[in-house]
Amino acid sequence: MLNLMEITEKNKKVLINELKERIGETEQEVILSVTNILSNVRKQGDKSLFEFTKKFDNVELKSLEVSKAEIDDCFNKVEEDFIKALEEAKTNIEDYHKKQKSNGFLMAKDNGVYLGQRVLPLERVGVYVPGGTAAYPSSVLMNVIPAKVAGVDEIIMVTPPDKDGGINPYIGVAARIAGITKIYKVGGAQAIGALAYGTETIEKVDKIVGPGNIFVAIAKKLVFGQVDIDMIAGPSEILVIADEKSDPAFIAADLMSQAEHDKLASSILVTTSKELYEKVEIELEKQVKTLEREDIIRTSLKDFGKAIICETIEDCIDISNTIAPEHLEIMVDEPMMYLGLIKNAGSVFLGRYCPEPIGDYFGGTNHVLPTSGTARFFSPLSVDSFIKKSSFIYYSKEAIMKNGKKIITLANKEGLTAHANSVKVRLNNECL
Amino acid sequence: MLNLMEITEKNKKVLINELKERIGETEQEVILSVTNILSNVRKQGDKSLFEFTKKFDNVELKSLEVSKAEIDDCFNKVEEDFIKALEEAKTNIEDYHKKQKSNGFLMAKDNGVYLGQRVLPLERVGVYVPGGTAAYPSSVLMNVIPAKVAGVDEIIMVTPPDKDGGINPYIGVAARIAGITKIYKVGGAQAIGALAYGTETIEKVDKIVGPGNIFVAIAKKLVFGQVDIDMIAGPSEILVIADEKSDPAFIAADLMSQAEHDKLASSILVTTSKELYEKVEIELEKQVKTLEREDIIRTSLKDFGKAIICETIEDCIDISNTIAPEHLEIMVDEPMMYLGLIKNAGSVFLGRYCPEPIGDYFGGTNHVLPTSGTARFFSPLSVDSFIKKSSFIYYSKEAIMKNGKKIITLANKEGLTAHANSVKVRLNNECL
Repeated sequence: MLNLMEITEKNKKVLINELKERIGETEQEVILSVTNILSNVRKQGDKSLFEFTKKFDNVELKSLEVSKAEIDDCFNKVEEDFIKALEEAKTNIEDYHKKQKSNGFLMAKDNGVYLGQRVLPLERVGVYVPGGTAAYPSSVLMNVIPAKVAGVDEIIMVTPPDKDGGINPYIGVAARIAGITKIYKVGGAQAIGALAYGTETIEKVDKIVGPGNIFVAIAKKLVFGQVDIDMIAGPSEILVIADEKSDPAFIAADLMSQAEHDKLASSILVTTSKELYEKVEIELEKQVKTLEREDIIRTSLKDFGKAIICETIEDCIDISNTIAPEHLEIMVDEPMMYLGLIKNAGSVFLGRYCPEPIGDYFGGTNHVLPTSGTARFFSPLSVDSFIKKSSFIYYSKEAIMKNGKKIITLANKEGLTAHANSVKVRLNNECL
Repeated sequence: MLNLMEITEKNKKVLINELKERIGETEQEVILSVTNILSNVRKQGDKSLFEFTKKFDNVELKSLEVSKAEIDDCFNKVEEDFIKALEEAKTNIEDYHKKQKSNGFLMAKDNGVYLGQRVLPLERVGVYVPGGTAAYPSSVLMNVIPAKVAGVDEIIMVTPPDKDGGINPYIGVAARIAGITKIYKVGGAQAIGALAYGTETIEKVDKIVGPGNIFVAIAKKLVFGQVDIDMIAGPSEILVIADEKSDPAFIAADLMSQAEHDKLASSILVTTSKELYEKVEIELEKQVKTLEREDIIRTSLKDFGKAIICETIEDCIDISNTIAPEHLEIMVDEPMMYLGLIKNAGSVFLGRYCPEPIGDYFGGTNHVLPTSGTARFFSPLSVDSFIKKSSFIYYSKEAIMKNGKKIITLANKEGLTAHANSVKVRLNNECL
């Protein structure tokens, strides 16, 4: 099912361009519609939220907030083993993210100069959680826990109501386990507007995170600057580097775990063994029939699945660095040996027993990762996504006396005489 | 010259809204023009760079790259005291930013599980430096040094040529002092396009930083995602908190050092003493006449200058937290005592002898700061702006045997059976 490629320098570029082509242009119509929704929410607040919910979700809500009793009820609707697994996942995710906390610093210099940097949590964050088949409880944990660990005071969740005006019980359970106390039943671009501008009920936040459909993604782009946002996620990738000793059944399964997400997802095998590739093909055919999303998987593999044969594992890594995949699996002996060679990858899964879903659900690393080659410059969601820094500096009278003239020189050369003047008045004042 | 305000809860909101109104809508025309330029550069590479440079800068260039000899020559054109001051500033900026370097980590858990995070420098960065009166050598240092400290391999500078096809000598000197080796004579949206897409001469980068006019700012927004960008800077602010013991001459000078930047800049005095405010007004009138940019200063202070009288210093800080100023000066006894109360500020200047230009030029903190109230969620430019993180995870056979079932439960509840399958094949295989 994979497209076999012999790699050359020229080929590499073709490959990258093919992957890039997955990202289409946004239709003008969607942008206009979202602009309209945002402007309505900004002007009319709650009223427009009720109206859009009626229009888009076909529900007439009485109140936006999800009550404590509703969440209690979610726990009656879901299975015990799910709750237990989610709680254990929470612990693992928390443990990992606690390691990401960073501290400020203070440098004391001579002449009574000190300077430093503070690290402060954002005050209020909004988490968007999609409804329907894209309602993933694991994403609730992945978006909320780093914010909690960062020390964010208030985390607000928004999610569209189901057809009866309720919320998805798995989402409700995940929200409480993650420690969310405020949930509002509102989705789409209108939810993003509410978080960015605030309404009578929903308080304006400092940052909006979480995945969503094209309306949500465009709305996030449009409110950026008014608030901060996380990455805009594009189609995602898995790249598996495997040597001849790797199990073709494992590889086939892992490639399809990515392919089932989306017809635009890309699953790429890069291997030193053509024989392995042939066995993987057989496994793909065998396993795909047992999977619910067979159609999506077949389309995705046909359009964006690749198999690339290389001479050495180092060559395989070179290709991976060029593609900068969201997920990278390294199925070789002593995989840790190769970690230092990897330049661009959202998350790396090492060894033959570490399929990507370990990271999606349970291991502790974050599953919100840079997609579509943006691992070249973007990072996984982390505690750092929910902090801001602030620098500070103290100068004593002695220090400005010593250094003032140099500052005046630099300011004057830039033609900023009022900048120079602010130092001059202090030097003069002392001379009087 | 300042607008006096008695502050109330309602007033605070009015104040914020007034400041927000400084940010206008971008004209459709500019966006269209920039889209055109970018698309041309993408298709035609160098050719379009020469054409746009002829069109917009009125220069027919022979080559884009600035030669080593041209930079050597810059050193003959600038004053010795400028070079010395800039070199000392460089040392201070480097010392401060080295403290910002962060490390990855590795957690080893039981059952042969380990996971961690790597911190990697971006590979290639582009720095935009404006020409004309907005050519600030200090900005070259502030944008380049953090990238250098982060370990970025290649830092490319672009700057528009002057009318004779040369570059501003102060910029050339600053570039070499900062450690830049590649400079191209190209400005405007076309320079941003070249950095984002690459041309025959200019290599595509991972991130673009540096200030620019509206064309540059829009171009950066439009290529975002293709590459990373720094913040889009809006009109900037200074907020001075001062008690009755503070020197009105100092305060007046500091307010004007911000006001001279731009008619849209906002300079705000928040004080516990109405008497002080009155003395500051007298000082403003006295000093403004001596400054080159008197007109800009008068307009800026009239439109966006404020004086707010409060009961206590804590009240002053409360207002500052609401405004989230780019620059915050605290002119009181023992200013460090108040640092813990400050929630939102780009950079804080402590004490009566620490005017904001110390940070602009010399102290060591970065002068690229979040403007227009975005200090609520954005941070100063830092070493972190030039790194990316990558997570990794290793699971042993034992670990997946122990935890596999929980992962299968979570994946199945999300309807992702191919995710579950990637764990199942490993559990089954072991059982065979």
